[in-house]
Amino acid sequence: MNSEQKTKSSGRVTIPTDVDVVPETLEIMKIWGADALRDCDGTDFPQELKQANAKIYKTYYTTRKDNEWAKANLDEVQQMYIMTNFYTAVSGTLSIHLMAGIYPEMLKVNSADDITRWWEVIDRTTGEVVPISNWSYCEETGDVTIKNAVPFHDYTVSFLAYIMWDPVHMYNAVVNDWQGIEKQITFDVRQPKTKEFSKERLRKFCRENPHVDVIRYTTFFHQFTLIFDELAREKFVDWYGYSASVSPYILAQFEQEVGYGFRPEYIIDQGYMNNQYRVPSKQFKDFQAFQRREVAKLAKELVDITHEEGKEAMMFLGDHWIGTEPFMEEFSTIGLDSVVGSVGNGSTLRLISDIPGVKYTEGRFLPYFFPDVFHKGGDPVKEARFNWVTARRAILRNPIDRIGYGGYLKLALDFPDFVEYVTSVCDEFRTLYENAAGATPYCVKKVAVLNCWGKMRAWGAHMVHHALYQKQNYSYAGVIEALSGAPFDVQFISFDDILDFPQMLKDFDIIINVGDAYTAHSGGDYWKDKRIASAVKEFIHNGGGFIGIGEPTACQHQGRYFQLAGVMGVEKERGFNLNQDKYNWHEHDHFIIDDCKGVIDFGEGQKNIFALEGATVIRQNHKEVQMAVNSFGSGRCVYISGLPYSFENSRLLYRAIMWASGDEQNLKKWFSTNYNVEVHAYVKNGKYCVVNNTYEPQSTTVYKGDGTCFDLDLAANEIIWYEI
Amino acid sequence: MNSEQKTKSSGRVTIPTDVDVVPETLEIMKIWGADALRDCDGTDFPQELKQANAKIYKTYYTTRKDNEWAKANLDEVQQMYIMTNFYTAVSGTLSIHLMAGIYPEMLKVNSADDITRWWEVIDRTTGEVVPISNWSYCEETGDVTIKNAVPFHDYTVSFLAYIMWDPVHMYNAVVNDWQGIEKQITFDVRQPKTKEFSKERLRKFCRENPHVDVIRYTTFFHQFTLIFDELAREKFVDWYGYSASVSPYILAQFEQEVGYGFRPEYIIDQGYMNNQYRVPSKQFKDFQAFQRREVAKLAKELVDITHEEGKEAMMFLGDHWIGTEPFMEEFSTIGLDSVVGSVGNGSTLRLISDIPGVKYTEGRFLPYFFPDVFHKGGDPVKEARFNWVTARRAILRNPIDRIGYGGYLKLALDFPDFVEYVTSVCDEFRTLYENAAGATPYCVKKVAVLNCWGKMRAWGAHMVHHALYQKQNYSYAGVIEALSGAPFDVQFISFDDILDFPQMLKDFDIIINVGDAYTAHSGGDYWKDKRIASAVKEFIHNGGGFIGIGEPTACQHQGRYFQLAGVMGVEKERGFNLNQDKYNWHEHDHFIIDDCKGVIDFGEGQKNIFALEGATVIRQNHKEVQMAVNSFGSGRCVYISGLPYSFENSRLLYRAIMWASGDEQNLKKWFSTNYNVEVHAYVKNGKYCVVNNTYEPQSTTVYKGDGTCFDLDLAANEIIWYEI
Repeated sequence: MNSEQKTKSSGRVTIPTDVDVVPETLEIMKIWGADALRDCDGTDFPQELKQANAKIYKTYYTTRKDNEWAKANLDEVQQMYIMTNFYTAVSGTLSIHLMAGIYPEMLKVNSADDITRWWEVIDRTTGEVVPISNWSYCEETGDVTIKNAVPFHDYTVSFLAYIMWDPVHMYNAVVNDWQGIEKQITFDVRQPKTKEFSKERLRKFCRENPHVDVIRYTTFFHQFTLIFDELAREKFVDWYGYSASVSPYILAQFEQEVGYGFRPEYIIDQGYMNNQYRVPSKQFKDFQAFQRREVAKLAKELVDITHEEGKEAMMFLGDHWIGTEPFMEEFSTIGLDSVVGSVGNGSTLRLISDIPGVKYTEGRFLPYFFPDVFHKGGDPVKEARFNWVTARRAILRNPIDRIGYGGYLKLALDFPDFVEYVTSVCDEFRTLYENAAGATPYCVKKVAVLNCWGKMRAWGAHMVHHALYQKQNYSYAGVIEALSGAPFDVQFISFDDILDFPQMLKDFDIIINVGDAYTAHSGGDYWKDKRIASAVKEFIHNGGGFIGIGEPTACQHQGRYFQLAGVMGVEKERGFNLNQDKYNWHEHDHFIIDDCKGVIDFGEGQKNIFALEGATVIRQNHKEVQMAVNSFGSGRCVYISGLPYSFENSRLLYRAIMWASGDEQNLKKWFSTNYNVEVHAYVKNGKYCVVNNTYEPQSTTVYKGDGTCFDLDLAANEIIWYEI
Repeated sequence: MNSEQKTKSSGRVTIPTDVDVVPETLEIMKIWGADALRDCDGTDFPQELKQANAKIYKTYYTTRKDNEWAKANLDEVQQMYIMTNFYTAVSGTLSIHLMAGIYPEMLKVNSADDITRWWEVIDRTTGEVVPISNWSYCEETGDVTIKNAVPFHDYTVSFLAYIMWDPVHMYNAVVNDWQGIEKQITFDVRQPKTKEFSKERLRKFCRENPHVDVIRYTTFFHQFTLIFDELAREKFVDWYGYSASVSPYILAQFEQEVGYGFRPEYIIDQGYMNNQYRVPSKQFKDFQAFQRREVAKLAKELVDITHEEGKEAMMFLGDHWIGTEPFMEEFSTIGLDSVVGSVGNGSTLRLISDIPGVKYTEGRFLPYFFPDVFHKGGDPVKEARFNWVTARRAILRNPIDRIGYGGYLKLALDFPDFVEYVTSVCDEFRTLYENAAGATPYCVKKVAVLNCWGKMRAWGAHMVHHALYQKQNYSYAGVIEALSGAPFDVQFISFDDILDFPQMLKDFDIIINVGDAYTAHSGGDYWKDKRIASAVKEFIHNGGGFIGIGEPTACQHQGRYFQLAGVMGVEKERGFNLNQDKYNWHEHDHFIIDDCKGVIDFGEGQKNIFALEGATVIRQNHKEVQMAVNSFGSGRCVYISGLPYSFENSRLLYRAIMWASGDEQNLKKWFSTNYNVEVHAYVKNGKYCVVNNTYEPQSTTVYKGDGTCFDLDLAANEIIWYEI
């Protein structure tokens, strides 16, 4: 897991630097024990530090920072698919301005390639493609005009646009109010001229930077989807979006590989752009697989060059990371030395630390040293503390190998309490790493999270933009966050995995299905597949535990909305069951909520859930069930309406897993009675720790693996290490 | 409209009587001005009152109160379709006990008819019918046993059962704790032997009751669906349910008529029993049409006998009313003199008073004189006042011709304040009737309520059981209730009506679509039909108003959940749009809410509604839009998340209709500034009234039709009549 050996007092920490903070950089290196220096977008590496006793990272922008090349090869500028808004025809003619609502300097309509092949005009009232003979594009107006439109039908145009301003460069420029800069154009490394150019450019870059030890790729080729509106506000963001990884050149290859004709709609997906919430189509899965293979192949060429030039290759999991998919088979073939990623919480920590096939991983912690936090009146310590304590739970389950910070060091220096706090973080991390690394921590249960994406979206399930919660997903993402620091062996499996190998479910103690109806997370029509429904029911009947959260197994079919209503013991009222009298509303005490205090926070919860006869209701609000349990054969089911992340809910989930696997009697092993405190054991290393996740002192009783216990008081945030 | 002429001081009132309250009946007749006497289930008409100066009604039970006949003709006992619960096979054999969860003395499995033809065993995991060769029924155990079951598939059995205890008789017996009574069996008047017997029985009944003026049918042939569970609790109730109007005899005729084979599933409908919330299938619509025709034909035979015997025929709209469908064409062919129905609120009042084709209508007001209300500590005045004031709004729009009460008069006599209150109600009703009858009240707009049922469920839309609200429907039924007393010409139209004659929409100023997604009320897949979506969009574009409440036009299709999102300016977030940034949250003041005080009550409201750019948000809670408006062409749209009935919300809807039809300037005609007070004008009669709907005094400014106004103070509940 770790290719580097450092003493406890220093190492494993990366800091940013710039030409204006040379002595300060050396001072911070000493205080924080930093052993690596990095640059950032908008900084330069100071000559004076080339001989500092530190590894030197240099960000490398595979796809930008060479407008000369971009402008000379406009045909190989990156492209993205855009769908216009919906427009309603009110007569036989309808004109649609393609760039309406889009920041004009970011994108440029690509009408150079054959628009009759690569664009699509769709009647969204019927879903039918409008014949090419019925529409035309006018360069002067930028409008597509449809003739023979059907009055009062809605129409959209799907078209290709060149990315004339790299979205991340634009974001950085807007946030930092950069004035008078040249907008960086994004070129497409996968196209033939740029591919050859880029390999040479990389080799040249390596040779021009002999002091650099690590090329930090930002990232390889394709930006996740990020579009700004006419007011330069974010318009559309999908950290997992593939719509900016397209071009006629690539798509023609795709057609060749899959053997069927391409349609823009495969990417456009009715305007939903195949976001993570959509149950993926076969064509989109094919496209992702194609991209994974092609991206890995070309990324390997760049990594090989890096190695030939005597440097390490580090990938930043962000920006142009699309197609790399770190949890998929192709990734390890790239040959990367390391991955670094931004850590927003426990889930995004595991998104990095769980990546197989690299020598080390590094987490970039928050806050980024940008003026949005580091300004007069800002409270960077608060952000730092929140970030560290939130991520620490996950580090204790599977540590990253290094931590680091980014941005402008100069800004941080104005906050001495921040510098001091980070000093303690760095020390704590090194101790933790020393004790925990290399040993699989004690895992109580094997837990599968079942959705349409499986391992490809491991730890990132429900995530729209990196580590940002939304009103519609925090009640579900909370489950993933709770799991990120919980003592379980968590695997993310897909419905396709079950179809491929139904016996796989035997490996697990618990299946979790969490999300809204018809999303890829709950599974939608997959639950109509008799093989899926039967396999999961069989798993439960044979003693497995099933935990459904939100609208699990939801898909209206044959008299049921929840396809596993019968085994879960709950169903959702959509109006169709109002005729049925419902008497099962009495709330019961239960093992699962024994540690809950007061009102349980179900987040957004659910409306209209009712319990079937025989199920045990644990919580209902105004005759809307929020939690219930049921048995089926030898197995047990738990229904929860939503579970935002909190220490209390994390405990609730822990107990739900223990109960659903019929193992209540083993609850108190490596366990803290106070849910604000957690216990992690590294049996192989002969160590265990007790960690206070809160910002206040806590008292608890700690149970060891043999069931013996002792009382303990912890300071705020304290972590205490013990020998087993 | 009215076949009877009475003086203002008496008449138009029906009261119940019994052998134990003869002098009291005469006294109450005088006080209340009653001119008709009736009996009830469990009472007898006293000899002494046969010469009283009153019309005499006698309840007639077409389908029960003759167990001798029923027992001698068990093959013609009424039947109903039942679906068992879902059962999961865990091996190749699965046994299902048909009567599990059903009150054993109410229903009896019908295995006399060919079960291989009339029963169905369905694999609910796949929706496939289990071959007859794979299941069998055992009379001794009452179980259907399935062989070659697929493990972990769910199964149900659809079967026919005889109704061995009339559900209403059972209900009355349970509520009144009748002991030692014989359970009345329900026989099927539509079957050949019983049909002939029933006609003779009716003629005999008429001749044995020469003192009776009105035969009050309770009702004709088929009970709405009402089932009790093993604890004698209500298990399933559907006031509109057709599942108890079946038998092999009837269904064979149905097959003949429609020319395709019958399947139990046409009635069972996955266990949802084609309740009003289900988008109706073609087969179910065919079945209803068949029943309407057949029921009307046979009911006419009974009504003809009634007339031949010199009596009036009155139908009670309740109990065995299924198939009569008072708003459909067949109804008037029955030749009834009158319809009486229970009045629960304004909607149920219009359900009676709007029935075309009868000489008069009568409303039975609440409370029913039963011990559930008339007991020590009960407050019948409160119930009576609420019932009267709630219904009065609707009476002022379209009056019933008579009012009345039911139950045991003896119980009411113990409450002198109740007797006094009803005295005032009777007087007020007579005045009102005198002033309002025969004149169409002033209608401000023509409003269409658009759903799958149209006029067949006029005023009963969203209703599960007569006048009872449920958590899932009060936010929508409130709209119907508000309309029942509002100065609009309201019509209920169906999607099929639009398909048949798209130009019909030109007759309306406003279309309202109200309900949850995929219910018959919002319309479900009908919105995928290009003809529907286009017709409604065209209507709006040409200046029509569209008011969508709840999940209007909802049906996931081609990038939209609300199919009219573009014109309404709102859409529902189901996870698929989380990538899109949403900036339109600012709340605006608006004409529609100018009379609202404080927080608007949206009832259950809606989660996850967002406004599109360009729409005007009126109310949002935590970034969930509750009300918004938008323009499209010359038309206007209003979105409201829910609208429970209240005087304030009634005003809100009124203003929404005025705004959506672009007619704000005519708001103040026949108008009260205080929304607790309403104004109704009967221009033809030269009268108008101002009515205080509350239980407290109110002050207001009244606007007349010419726009002039005056201030007015009203006592609690007061109604004041004026000449125009």
